[in-house]
Amino acid sequence: MTYCLGIITRSGLVFAADSRTNAGVDYVSTYQKLFDFVWEGDRTVVICTSGNLAITQSILTLIQNDLYKQEPQNLTTFSNMYDVANYVGAKVRWVQEQQKPWLQKDGIDAQCNLLLGGQIKGESAQLYMIYTQGNFIQATPETPFLQIGETKYGKPILDRTLHFDIDLESAAKCALLSIDSTMKSNISVGPPINLLIYHQDSFTVKYRLQLKAGDPFLIQFRKQWEIAIRQAFEQMPDIDWGYNSPSIYPVETGED
Amino acid sequence: MTYCLGIITRSGLVFAADSRTNAGVDYVSTYQKLFDFVWEGDRTVVICTSGNLAITQSILTLIQNDLYKQEPQNLTTFSNMYDVANYVGAKVRWVQEQQKPWLQKDGIDAQCNLLLGGQIKGESAQLYMIYTQGNFIQATPETPFLQIGETKYGKPILDRTLHFDIDLESAAKCALLSIDSTMKSNISVGPPINLLIYHQDSFTVKYRLQLKAGDPFLIQFRKQWEIAIRQAFEQMPDIDWGYNSPSIYPVETGED
Repeated sequence: MTYCLGIITRSGLVFAADSRTNAGVDYVSTYQKLFDFVWEGDRTVVICTSGNLAITQSILTLIQNDLYKQEPQNLTTFSNMYDVANYVGAKVRWVQEQQKPWLQKDGIDAQCNLLLGGQIKGESAQLYMIYTQGNFIQATPETPFLQIGETKYGKPILDRTLHFDIDLESAAKCALLSIDSTMKSNISVGPPINLLIYHQDSFTVKYRLQLKAGDPFLIQFRKQWEIAIRQAFEQMPDIDWGYNSPSIYPVETGED
Repeated sequence: MTYCLGIITRSGLVFAADSRTNAGVDYVSTYQKLFDFVWEGDRTVVICTSGNLAITQSILTLIQNDLYKQEPQNLTTFSNMYDVANYVGAKVRWVQEQQKPWLQKDGIDAQCNLLLGGQIKGESAQLYMIYTQGNFIQATPETPFLQIGETKYGKPILDRTLHFDIDLESAAKCALLSIDSTMKSNISVGPPINLLIYHQDSFTVKYRLQLKAGDPFLIQFRKQWEIAIRQAFEQMPDIDWGYNSPSIYPVETGED
């Protein structure tokens, strides 16, 4: 499994991804799922991938090949992120068309989901989620995050803390907590964690981090959060049991 | 969907359940999913249900009918909870056998999962999860909780706070936070929330609560948790970005 998260705020973007893949429980390995492409001063494009690894790797290779070969359509040729989303969506469709019939024969899941974010000079930063079918949705200020992969464990902390006006440093902390909560509750999501901040109108990436298993900061961060959560929990008021509704089968047999 | 949670501690049991069911998104209704049967001084049995409502209601009705008719096998005739689990598992199998072929014809999900807990005089309190197939597992001190239904959103808070030696009042608070986190992140889980504490060797239920939507305590409880989480979050240390690894496609195009 995988967990990737993209956040859009007024001041930029945050991306976070784990690195664990598994084909069954007996073949677990580590693959990077967060990739950024930077053309300083002009554009920055970030892609996160989840789902069938053979398919997502192919999609990424095709995108890189277009760049190396300077094809008429590549990440540098588009003037807006919507067109980039269409371009990546078309790559998804092409690979799905090649691979899916073969996978279906053996009942293998061909699904893939991608996060695509970044900024091209002339417009503001954007964040998209691209589906297996190549279509896509865009994050908006009302719901300033998009998740792919094993999304449920890490959602409550986002629902309680994220908003469009949060500063990027706090959004990155929130992303790290969301990934860490998921890692704690589900072994199919695991380190290294890749984390990245993109500052609006910077057209470069200054903050990029990889946290390996056992990283002292990651261990300290998790410990501190557990202490903080336990303290928060201890402050909670006692439940007011008040009126005690009856059970559905209250049979008085006496105190035998 | 549904979310039910059972907790076993050294001093007893806690159960919590939401009350929302839905057949598609356009038919949402309210049904109780937590039921307790009390024979004061002798035994207490608690059942929570998730999955296909027609099936879980049938299972519960059969169990109640056996009681009313005083059948040779009913909830009062067993001397231990393991036998009760087998009895309830047999009801699950019987109903599945009647209903599943008809549901399968139309591709309707016949799954059901039950939590079963309680105590019979002569042994300590027990907690089981019964599967669609009628087999079951038992909660143990290492993992002192079992969940059925929409379990993922509410698991991180349990993983961080629950342990076998927690007092029952705190375990109940933890259960309420777990349900509340799930309700906030997933609209298929909703109030009223039913909550129950069973004290080891009490053979009765003194603490039983139903929290409806808009209940002032529930609103206050959620608000206080959100404040506490936000405070905990604000205390977290800044991320140490340190070494900045390179992007995968760093092309210098100059400051154009």
